[in-house]
Amino acid sequence: MPTGPNETDGRRLRGQQSRATALDTAVALASVDGLAGISMAQLASALGVSKSGLFTHWSDKEQLQLAAIERAKDQWTDQVVRPALSAPSPLQTLWRVHESRLDFYARDVLPGGCFFTTVEREFRDHPGPVRDRLRELAGHWETWLCSLATGAIAAGELADAAVPEQLAFEIDAAGVAVVTRSRLLDRDAAFAYGRAAILQRLRALAPNPALLPEG
Amino acid sequence: MPTGPNETDGRRLRGQQSRATALDTAVALASVDGLAGISMAQLASALGVSKSGLFTHWSDKEQLQLAAIERAKDQWTDQVVRPALSAPSPLQTLWRVHESRLDFYARDVLPGGCFFTTVEREFRDHPGPVRDRLRELAGHWETWLCSLATGAIAAGELADAAVPEQLAFEIDAAGVAVVTRSRLLDRDAAFAYGRAAILQRLRALAPNPALLPEG
Repeated sequence: MPTGPNETDGRRLRGQQSRATALDTAVALASVDGLAGISMAQLASALGVSKSGLFTHWSDKEQLQLAAIERAKDQWTDQVVRPALSAPSPLQTLWRVHESRLDFYARDVLPGGCFFTTVEREFRDHPGPVRDRLRELAGHWETWLCSLATGAIAAGELADAAVPEQLAFEIDAAGVAVVTRSRLLDRDAAFAYGRAAILQRLRALAPNPALLPEG
Repeated sequence: MPTGPNETDGRRLRGQQSRATALDTAVALASVDGLAGISMAQLASALGVSKSGLFTHWSDKEQLQLAAIERAKDQWTDQVVRPALSAPSPLQTLWRVHESRLDFYARDVLPGGCFFTTVEREFRDHPGPVRDRLRELAGHWETWLCSLATGAIAAGELADAAVPEQLAFEIDAAGVAVVTRSRLLDRDAAFAYGRAAILQRLRALAPNPALLPEG
């Protein structure tokens, strides 16, 4: 049997696919109970593959955890950030990213609602490479929200009195709160309050509130 | 050696003290990594007592988890709710309870910052008596915040347009966000934003903002 370039490519593709499937499974499991509880054995069993097959992708559990974070980040970029980028102005992008985040939670894309809130909670008191990477990504997220608010102020879409860091805090707080409250208390109410909190805040600061949906 | 009433009382007191100490340790450990990770063996070892001694207090792990929740609730009542009750009006109580919550976090009373945000996150997707009790307490907390906002509206301290459930959501969201953000990102900034978010919101809704501190 010839082992030409096509077969090698096919093997590499299957390897990449099994890696991606394993990471999707890890991200989904971690959204419920965190990364520490995921063992190579559990992941192999969930995927119906051998444990040794997984070790060809990641040498140890920490490498798997770090890879899962990158996978979750790509998912967040695709499903939360990207849909907001087509908005016509910084203020509208800021609003749309909050909407698409709530939509991501409402669609139950992940069984635990959100990978990052769970894993940040899990690692925030445990120094190491996993926490370092989570801090870095949380910092990038905050910086991006701030830059949108700064852009909106510069464009005259938000009052000069608006404080970008304060808005970034409130937008993130409302998003995080929806994940837990929609699961513990009234689901629809949690989404409605999480939406209204930021919409009212932005409309109150916008010289032209008509740029945003009505309350 | 006589075993009169005094000695029996003494033994009962020591039993109550060891129970309280064990629960304080459980609440502190759970604030970092949740309740599920606490084993009777780990708790016995942290306390320097025998595992069988702990079993005289709780027949199984779930009983211990439920008892830890009650202990954390009592701590929250003493240190967060009670200091706010001396405020002279509903609006001021609402503000003070947010302040005393942030103060509770800032004093690092618990090594993980907050028992309830960690344990709600841990159990929100796991049905059972522990989640039932957490839902009940989260409901009581929300109801109490709402009743303060309703009282403030009735007293003319908040505008009629204020929505008590919406305010309760935002107050809780700001509190929860401070716990994680103060540990992952700039600590002082997280406390400042968590304070300003609610102070600005309440002042904007108060016909007489002088009832509250300045921004």
